[in-house]
Amino acid sequence: MPEPSPSDLSRRGLLGLAAAGGVGAVAGLAAGAAAVSAADGGGGSASARRYDFYGRHQAGITTPAQDRLHFAAFDMSADASRDDLAALLADWTEAAARMTQGLEVGESGAVGGSPYAPPEDTGEALGLPASGLTLTFGFGPTLFETADGVDRFGIADRRPPALEPLPRFTGDALVPEKSGGDLCVQACADDPQVAVHAIRNLSRIAFGRASLRWSQLGFGRTSSTSTSQTTPRNLFGFKDGTANIKAEEPDAVAEHVWVSADDGPGWLAGGSYLVARRIRMIIESWDRVQLAEQEDLVGRTKGEGGPMSGGGEFTELDLTATTPDGAPAIADDAHVRLAHPDVNGGIRLLRRGYNFVDGNDELGRLDAGLFFLSFQRDPARFVAVQRSLARDGLNEYLRHVGSAVFAVPPGVQAGASIGDGLLG
Amino acid sequence: MPEPSPSDLSRRGLLGLAAAGGVGAVAGLAAGAAAVSAADGGGGSASARRYDFYGRHQAGITTPAQDRLHFAAFDMSADASRDDLAALLADWTEAAARMTQGLEVGESGAVGGSPYAPPEDTGEALGLPASGLTLTFGFGPTLFETADGVDRFGIADRRPPALEPLPRFTGDALVPEKSGGDLCVQACADDPQVAVHAIRNLSRIAFGRASLRWSQLGFGRTSSTSTSQTTPRNLFGFKDGTANIKAEEPDAVAEHVWVSADDGPGWLAGGSYLVARRIRMIIESWDRVQLAEQEDLVGRTKGEGGPMSGGGEFTELDLTATTPDGAPAIADDAHVRLAHPDVNGGIRLLRRGYNFVDGNDELGRLDAGLFFLSFQRDPARFVAVQRSLARDGLNEYLRHVGSAVFAVPPGVQAGASIGDGLLG
Ligand code: HEM
Ligand code: HEM
Repeated sequence: MPEPSPSDLSRRGLLGLAAAGGVGAVAGLAAGAAAVSAADGGGGSASARRYDFYGRHQAGITTPAQDRLHFAAFDMSADASRDDLAALLADWTEAAARMTQGLEVGESGAVGGSPYAPPEDTGEALGLPASGLTLTFGFGPTLFETADGVDRFGIADRRPPALEPLPRFTGDALVPEKSGGDLCVQACADDPQVAVHAIRNLSRIAFGRASLRWSQLGFGRTSSTSTSQTTPRNLFGFKDGTANIKAEEPDAVAEHVWVSADDGPGWLAGGSYLVARRIRMIIESWDRVQLAEQEDLVGRTKGEGGPMSGGGEFTELDLTATTPDGAPAIADDAHVRLAHPDVNGGIRLLRRGYNFVDGNDELGRLDAGLFFLSFQRDPARFVAVQRSLARDGLNEYLRHVGSAVFAVPPGVQAGASIGDGLLG
Repeated sequence: MPEPSPSDLSRRGLLGLAAAGGVGAVAGLAAGAAAVSAADGGGGSASARRYDFYGRHQAGITTPAQDRLHFAAFDMSADASRDDLAALLADWTEAAARMTQGLEVGESGAVGGSPYAPPEDTGEALGLPASGLTLTFGFGPTLFETADGVDRFGIADRRPPALEPLPRFTGDALVPEKSGGDLCVQACADDPQVAVHAIRNLSRIAFGRASLRWSQLGFGRTSSTSTSQTTPRNLFGFKDGTANIKAEEPDAVAEHVWVSADDGPGWLAGGSYLVARRIRMIIESWDRVQLAEQEDLVGRTKGEGGPMSGGGEFTELDLTATTPDGAPAIADDAHVRLAHPDVNGGIRLLRRGYNFVDGNDELGRLDAGLFFLSFQRDPARFVAVQRSLARDGLNEYLRHVGSAVFAVPPGVQAGASIGDGLLG
C-alpha cells in the first residue's frame, strides 16, 4: 500500500500544503485496519504519532488512550434534510481523514487560499504534528426519532433497537444541557490544541446543518486501553483502568466491544455503542475521608492499586477473600466488586474516560470529576453495571450530571463516508 | 550547594517518600535564583523538568512558559485574621516548595500516613514527575481593603499605591464571578494533571481560611517567554508571543517586569504585577473573516507571523511603511500597531497567556478564547496599552469577561514564607 513519506504528513500546514496532493493523497492511505501506524514511536505532547482514519473499525476505541480529549455532541438543525445529514457526514469524513493525518482542513488550508476568502482551516494547529489524533463519530437515539410525526431523515426504521436513551439511575442529577445529542464526535490526541482544533473545525463545517449541543474537555486520560500504557490516576487519586479491556485482548474486544453481524442491525456490525457520563466528584468531601475508608470504598489500595484481597496491581480480585476478623476483604459496597464481571454476568466494558476540571461552583468547590466514556457491544451492558453500582459506596462522593448514548458505526474504507452504512 | 540526587526528586510519591527527609530536604535546595535547574533537558508532558521554588524572584514569570495552566483566585474567609493569613501563606509556601520539586504535600503524602486519617496529599499526581511545575502567588487589591472600617489584616498601610482595581475599559463585559480576588495562584506545568493537583491541594490547605473565588484552566500556552521556545498559536490561528519580552533579554526584564526598590513599596522590590483578563473570542464570526482582513486586523501574516510591513517572523515592525497605494502597510487599527512600544511610550509587557475552551454557550458557540496574563512593573503600563487597544480592529471579535490584578511579591529564600515581606 502506498504510504506518503513521513515529510508529507509529519507536519500540517506549510509543509503539508506544499507536499500533499489534497484529499486524494490521504484517501490513498491505509485502507486496511484502523490499527496503529505510528510515524514514530515517541510519546509526549509533541508526538508525530499518526493513526489511520480508514479501517474496519473506527479509531479512538481500542487505540491506546491518548492524553487529551475534546468531546462534542451536536444536534441537527430543525430544518435539516436527509441530504443535509448525508452531506454533513461526508464532509466530516473528508475533514477527519485529513486532520488525523496531520493535514489541514481543505486543500488550501489556513493560509494557502485566496486572501479574499475566509481560510478553509482555522489555523491554530498549523505547524503541529498529527499528535495521535483520532476522531470517532456516533449517532444518538434522537437522530432516529420522528419529529411531529415526520421521519426527519428517513431512518426511523434503521434505528438499532438497543439504541434507547439510558434509563434513569439511582442518584442521577442530570442536566439536559449536558446530556443527549443527535451526533457525537470524540476527539482524542496527545496535544489538546490538536483535539480542540478538530472539534472547532468540524463544528464550523456543520454550520447551518448541525450545531454544538454540549462539549467537554478532558485534560488527562483516566484509563489505559493498552498494556503498553501505565495506568493513570483519577481525581480521587486512585489508579484507574487497571482491569480495563486492553487492545491486546482481541477475544475480549470481539466479545465485549464490537457489535457483531448477528446482533444487528447490519449497518452497525463492526461498530459499538458509546456511553458518556459526566460524573462530578465532590472532591472536598472525598479529601476528608480517611485512607483506609477510601481504599475500602474503591476495593483497591491507593498506592499500588492492588486489590484489597491482596497482591499487586494486576493480581486478580478475590471476591471471596476475608480479613482475619471474617469480613469480606473487598467490601460488599466496594466499587470494584460491584463493577466486576463476576457479579454482572461476565460483562466487561472498554472504559476510555478523562479527568476534567471546569472552574468551580458558587461555593468555591472545583467543578471537577470524571468524564466517563465506555464502549460496549450493547448499551444494556452498561446499564447492568451501572445498576449494580447503585449500592456503590463511592456514590456519596459522586453526582452524575451528564449522560448520553450513541451508536458508533464501523470504520469505512477510503472514499466512503461514515454515514454510508446508515444512509446508503 | 547540596543537591539531592535525581532519584530523590525525579518522582513524587513512593520514591519521593522513601528518599526525602521531608521539608527540610527541600528547604536545603537551591537558595539561589529561581532560575532553571532542569533535572533533564527533555520537554513533553512527561517531563522531569524541575524549577527551584526559592530565589530572588518567583518562578513562573520569566520561566519558559509551560504548556498547561491552572489559575486560581481566592478570597479570604470573612472571619479570617492576620494570623490566619500569615499561616496560610506559610503553609502554601511549604507545600509549593515540595510540589514544585515533584514531592507530595506533607511528609506522609497520599499513602504513607495513618490509614485512619485523611491522606495529606490527594494522590492524583503520584508517580508523575515535577513536570516543570511553577507556583506563583499574588495579592489582590481587596486584600488590603478595610471591611466595615476594620483593617482586616492590618496591612492597609502596606498597600502598593499602584495596586488599584483596573479601570473600566471600552467594551468590557466583565462578570464579577470571574474577576478579582484577594489572592491568586498561577500553576503552570508541562502536565495538566500536575497543575490541577497543585491548585487542588493548595485550595484544600486553604480550607476555612480562604476559598476559591474563580479558577481557569488553560490547555495551551499562547506565548513564548524564551528564545528557546517556538511561538505557539492562539485560537485566531495566529502566532502569539513573537515580540514578547524573552527571559534572554535581562535588561528588558529589569526595565519592564520587576518592581525596583525605588518604585516601592520596599516589600515588593523584585516582585511584579500580574494582570489576568479572560478574553472570550467570538470564533464563529472570526472564522468567516477573509484571510487578508484577518491579517490586516492583527498586522502580521497568518502563516509565518511576519509583520505586514514585510520580513519574517522576527523582523521588526515598520510602522511607517506604506503599500503601493499609499495606505499604511500595518493598518491604523492593527493590533500589533496599537500594542507596540512605539505608540505606548516604550512600554513592553511580559505576556504569559493560555488558550482556553470551557464548553459552549446556549447558542452552541464554543466558550473559547485567550486567558491573557501579563507581568509588568506597574499595572499602569497594562492600562496604557489596553487603552491604546480601544481602537483595535480585533475588538469586534473579542469580549473581555474576566479581569483581575495582583501584586506579585518577590521570591523568598528557603525557610521564609511568601507572606514575610508583606506581613513581616
Ligand atoms: C467517578 C466515578 C468512578 C470512579 C472514581 C471509578 C474508579 C474506578 C477505579 C479506581 C477502579 C479500579 C481500577 C480499574 O480496574 O480500573 C475502577 C474499576 C472499574 N470501574 Fe469504575 N469508577 C467510576 C465510575 C464507573 C462507572 C460509571 C462504571 C460503569 C458503569 C465503572 C466501571 C468500572 C469497571 C467495570 C471497573 C473494573 C472492575 C473490575 O473488573 O475489577 N466505573 N473504577
Ligand atoms: C484575545 C486577545 C488578543 C489576541 C488574539 C492577541 C494577539 C496578538 C498577536 C497575534 C500578536 C502578534 C505576535 C506577537 O508579537 O506576540 C500580539 C502582539 C501583542 N499583543 Fe496581543 N492579543 C490579544 C490581547 C492583547 C492584550 C489584552 C494586550 C495588552 C493589553 C496585548 C498586547 C500585545 C502586545 C504588547 C503585543 C506585541 C506588540 C509588538 O511589540 O509588536 N494583546 N497579540
